[in-house]
Formats: sequence, C-alpha cells, structure tokens
Amino acid sequence: MYYHLINQMKKGLGQLDHCLAKAITHAQAKGYDPNVLAGMRLAPDQFPLTRQVQTACDTAKLSSARLTGKEAPKHGDEEKTLDELRARIATVIAWLDQLGPADFEGAAERVVSQPRWEGKTMTGADYFVEHALPNFFFHTATTYAILRHNGVDLGKRDYLGALTMHAPT
Amino acid sequence: MYYHLINQMKKGLGQLDHCLAKAITHAQAKGYDPNVLAGMRLAPDQFPLTRQVQTACDTAKLSSARLTGKEAPKHGDEEKTLDELRARIATVIAWLDQLGPADFEGAAERVVSQPRWEGKTMTGADYFVEHALPNFFFHTATTYAILRHNGVDLGKRDYLGALTMHAPT
Repeated sequence: MYYHLINQMKKGLGQLDHCLAKAITHAQAKGYDPNVLAGMRLAPDQFPLTRQVQTACDTAKLSSARLTGKEAPKHGDEEKTLDELRARIATVIAWLDQLGPADFEGAAERVVSQPRWEGKTMTGADYFVEHALPNFFFHTATTYAILRHNGVDLGKRDYLGALTMHAPT
Repeated sequence: MYYHLINQMKKGLGQLDHCLAKAITHAQAKGYDPNVLAGMRLAPDQFPLTRQVQTACDTAKLSSARLTGKEAPKHGDEEKTLDELRARIATVIAWLDQLGPADFEGAAERVVSQPRWEGKTMTGADYFVEHALPNFFFHTATTYAILRHNGVDLGKRDYLGALTMHAPT
C-alpha cells in the first residue's frame, strides 16, 4: 500500500509537470514570459508557485526516504524558471522510479522525526497518512489553483491523470 | 490502511469545518455577510466554494460507501450558507464515525464503477488511490485556497490539524 501510494505521488508529480508544460504553452500563446507564473501566489502571505512545486517535490522525496530508510537526493531550492522546476520534478520521479515494493517493508513501524519537531516522533504510518499525503496533494492542488487563477486552461483530468480502468465485462 | 485513510478524510472534514468557522468569524469582524464567501471562486470556470465543500463531502462519503458496500446518506446540494455547509460536513462525519476497521475488509478487491464511466470499472485499491484520495485533498485544499485568497487568516495547521506525535524518549 505504501508503494502504491508513493507511486500515486510519482504520478501526481508527472501531472504537475504536465500542468507546467501547459502553462508555458499558454504564456507563449498570450505573448508573456512563462516565468512570471513562477512568482504568482493566491495571497500575499502564501508561498508562490515556485515554492509550491519545490515543496510537492520534497514531500514525495522525503516521505519515501523516511519510509524506506534511503537517502534522498539533495536540491538547493534555486529554481527560477518553470523549466528548472520541471527539471527538479524529473529528478524526483527518477529517484522514485528506483524504489520497489520491498523497500517499503516495515514502513508503518519506522520512527520518523524532523529537526523542527524538537525530538518528538511519529510512526511511519501516522506520519505518512496525517502529514505526507495531505501535504503532497495540498501543494500540487495549490499549484494547479495558481495556474487556473491566472488563466491557464486546465481541468481536473490534468491534475488526476489517466485512471486504471477495466473494460465492461 | 483503508480505515486509517478514511479516518484521515474524516479528520480533513473536521479541519474544513474549522476553516469555515474561521471564515465566518473573519467576515463578521470585517462587517460583511459570511455567505458571500460561498459563491467565491478562483477562476470563472472553476467551481465556487460551495461546490468544493459539497464535493469534498461526497468524495469521503461515496468512497467509503464503495469500499464497504454500505449505502451512504443522500444530500440534495441545496446548501446556500456556510452554516448549511458545516451541517452537511457534520452529517458526513457522523456517518464515517459508525464505520469500523472490519467494514473495510476486502476493500482493495471490490469492483467500483460510476454511471458516467459507461460500464468500465476500477478495483477498490486503484479507485481509492488514483481517484478518491487525490480528489478529496484537491477539494479541501481548493476550499482553503479560496478562503486564503479572500483574506481569511488561515495557515497550514488549520488544514492539517494536530499530528499524532510521541514525546522524545
């Protein structure tokens, strides 16, 4: 199940990349610099698009690292353009690609902590369900909302991606 | 795990209710009708707040019904005020409250379909991970985004709620 859910995050990152690609095409068609969108935000004290994408990437990367005990690749948060954000997404997808179901054995019982938790801990199960999953979707949905608010032609399917459906029997 | 995730949806609905309560207080302090917020949206062709809340409720309600084989309570989508939306959230939380872990046995293997899928099906596992979870968080995060965009003083903790943390050992 953890592997299934991490794969869903990987799919979500692919859809996020797809939304950024549509945003670039939209901006070019309208004749403005697509990277203006990187600084857009829905409220003056909410993170701009760049930070939303970085945080979605980090949530997928760090939660899978914490559930598997593997060391995640490092990123310097220096992206300024949508192309650079897309490149970051690609590195996280590539990292998730090399994780297999066996890597998540015992994930629920792992002890997870973060520096700002001041020594407090969560079980892997609680951390993933209460923190990682809601945060991941929060930041991908907020990125989508920023783009929608700025006129990019997106629909729910761009966010969800294709579903694993079976033909009628 | 399904029960754990449905409980997280229940918690997310509680946080959504908490955000609406803060929105009402905010509007009253600013001297405007809180129910103006019910019609706000981030783009002219995106659903307004009312529909975002209704859809978050329905996703929690219908996905748990589909995974357990139980019949969910019906709602008529007639809410016009934030108080009515809060009442709807309360009925869904009450319904989720009476589901237990045993109700979700075999959830992954259930066959799920919807009228608009034209006879196509998904397994319970794929439906829940690819469709229900991303949609649920999409609509709660978008509700939060609409409120933030309109000046309601919310932070990530209002969305996430309290985390199950353990004291340092």
